[in-house]
Amino acid sequence: MKAVTITQPGGPEVLEWTDVPDPVPQTGEVLIEVEASAVNRADILQRQGLYDPPPGTSPYPGLECSGRIAALGPGVASWTVGDEVCALLTGGGYAEKVIAPVGQVLPIPKGVGLVEAAALPEVTCTVWSNLFGWFDGGDLTSSGLFAAAHLRPGETLLVHGGSSGIGTMAIQLAKAVGAKVAVTAGTREKLDRCAELGADILVNYREQDFVAAVRKATNGAGADVILDNMGAKYLDRNVKALAVNGRLAIIGMQGGVKGELNIGALLAKRAAISATSLRARPLGEKAAIVAAVREHVWPLIDAGHVRPVVDREVPMSDAAAAHRVVEESGHVGKVLLVAP
Amino acid sequence: MKAVTITQPGGPEVLEWTDVPDPVPQTGEVLIEVEASAVNRADILQRQGLYDPPPGTSPYPGLECSGRIAALGPGVASWTVGDEVCALLTGGGYAEKVIAPVGQVLPIPKGVGLVEAAALPEVTCTVWSNLFGWFDGGDLTSSGLFAAAHLRPGETLLVHGGSSGIGTMAIQLAKAVGAKVAVTAGTREKLDRCAELGADILVNYREQDFVAAVRKATNGAGADVILDNMGAKYLDRNVKALAVNGRLAIIGMQGGVKGELNIGALLAKRAAISATSLRARPLGEKAAIVAAVREHVWPLIDAGHVRPVVDREVPMSDAAAAHRVVEESGHVGKVLLVAP
Repeated sequence: MKAVTITQPGGPEVLEWTDVPDPVPQTGEVLIEVEASAVNRADILQRQGLYDPPPGTSPYPGLECSGRIAALGPGVASWTVGDEVCALLTGGGYAEKVIAPVGQVLPIPKGVGLVEAAALPEVTCTVWSNLFGWFDGGDLTSSGLFAAAHLRPGETLLVHGGSSGIGTMAIQLAKAVGAKVAVTAGTREKLDRCAELGADILVNYREQDFVAAVRKATNGAGADVILDNMGAKYLDRNVKALAVNGRLAIIGMQGGVKGELNIGALLAKRAAISATSLRARPLGEKAAIVAAVREHVWPLIDAGHVRPVVDREVPMSDAAAAHRVVEESGHVGKVLLVAP
Repeated sequence: MKAVTITQPGGPEVLEWTDVPDPVPQTGEVLIEVEASAVNRADILQRQGLYDPPPGTSPYPGLECSGRIAALGPGVASWTVGDEVCALLTGGGYAEKVIAPVGQVLPIPKGVGLVEAAALPEVTCTVWSNLFGWFDGGDLTSSGLFAAAHLRPGETLLVHGGSSGIGTMAIQLAKAVGAKVAVTAGTREKLDRCAELGADILVNYREQDFVAAVRKATNGAGADVILDNMGAKYLDRNVKALAVNGRLAIIGMQGGVKGELNIGALLAKRAAISATSLRARPLGEKAAIVAAVREHVWPLIDAGHVRPVVDREVPMSDAAAAHRVVEESGHVGKVLLVAP
């Protein structure tokens, strides 16, 4: 088969569409003939040599895909060869074929095309595992979701990078459960797209102080939950923007790894900070999250309340172009890579 | 009545046992004839002028008491004059009489003397609201307990200041639910007392690195939950000592307010940090916590599995001496103030 390999750590130009051996599904795995994959920031870090795939996993980038089941490993009875699916991967999605653990495979929701379904696994699983978790109550404490923010109806969510893949899904899911949504983005056009998806409070971070804007829009209360991709750069301001009993969920560190935490401010608000990544979770936690997403998020997509947001489709053989789009942050939603 | 007043901000000598007007219970409140109160670190901060009582509350120190119901405010039907009780207070416990909201009043557990019951309200409510909360699952998300660490059977808890009032209760409650307990303390004698209460892993912080000691005792895994009273000084080390899916619950800042947070380390562990104070919670949250403590902690005390730990009893008129004991940290458990 062909796959996108990383010839050496570096810029987009190191991505090469080349012949590699076919993967073989083991016990509890399926082989998927890939229809499309999608670009995640982790792929860019991996390309730069800053985020090696876990030992024993595919060396090619790609944390999600859509496609058709092409073969079943031993012991897999829940899918049939030919089924159309999408899947959360530990890597290897930028390829004609990829292996997925059966617990990370999802059906294609109603009304979603096979290509665009590749936009769903990472964002639904990341948003659900960070913002929700309360659907299943106590059950999920055994699935490593202690840190979930338990966003509730009527609460206010602040999403940084509202027009990103994660952001566009967070807006929709939060609105679907009855929360109020504030977003930050860097252009009027991006904020308009967030508003179309349901965002109530629009903050241009180039022109406005998000702490003041969110406080003003919540009568001084602040955000009950913040979904953050900036890490250190926003840490102090995020704590300032939190409401009493607020929860800050950090899922990215685009603004740095170490920052000063004002514990006194956190304590005065009885607030909490969590930081998670989906990729590093063990198989059991991923399977629990995927099962919960299928139970709670898929019906919202089936019913048309929540939609994948796709910025563009790029041929997989030109993955470099797709990486450039994401690195320049000119996109809204997901950038897909379509297999030949 | 007589009460301990703070004549001016300063050392223990500013505490004066003097005549003041009797308080009068309002709707939903009871008047308690105080048998005993107990010293909390917040009282010392208040004495120093660093922690003013919330507006509308008693100006005298004292966040808990035991005693007898002396009068009922309008609308109170759950208690009778003469009932022996203990109570969580917003202040005013260092006095012959004090007002308590009815939702913060508890019966005296079986086998506990009326004086020693004054040792229970703050430590049981603080420990329960920070370490547990999972008893009631989803219900408590509406009581502001999002941040509770949900300590589970088989997990490892690290308690800093294991011999403090909070520490001695945290050890006992964690053991009662089947957790493994590590403690830090500054002397062999204090560690021995922690061991008598059930602590499994003893760390002398003057001689040992608690991160290395806890890792070694958990086969490298670290602590699932940490109960911390040091704040900034321990922040980085606490994150290092956490296990994957770990939760750091900060309830004091004796080591400073602002510290550097390594978000990358937190994210790699999918871990969470909360910071809370009991005193600042609104009445509804306190009442929910007290009700849960009565439901879940009181039976453990009734059955003799958990005991109040009292260092000494000091006459309330000599509150200054009691403050000196706590400030010198020579005590184990609670220092009580006994009314005349």
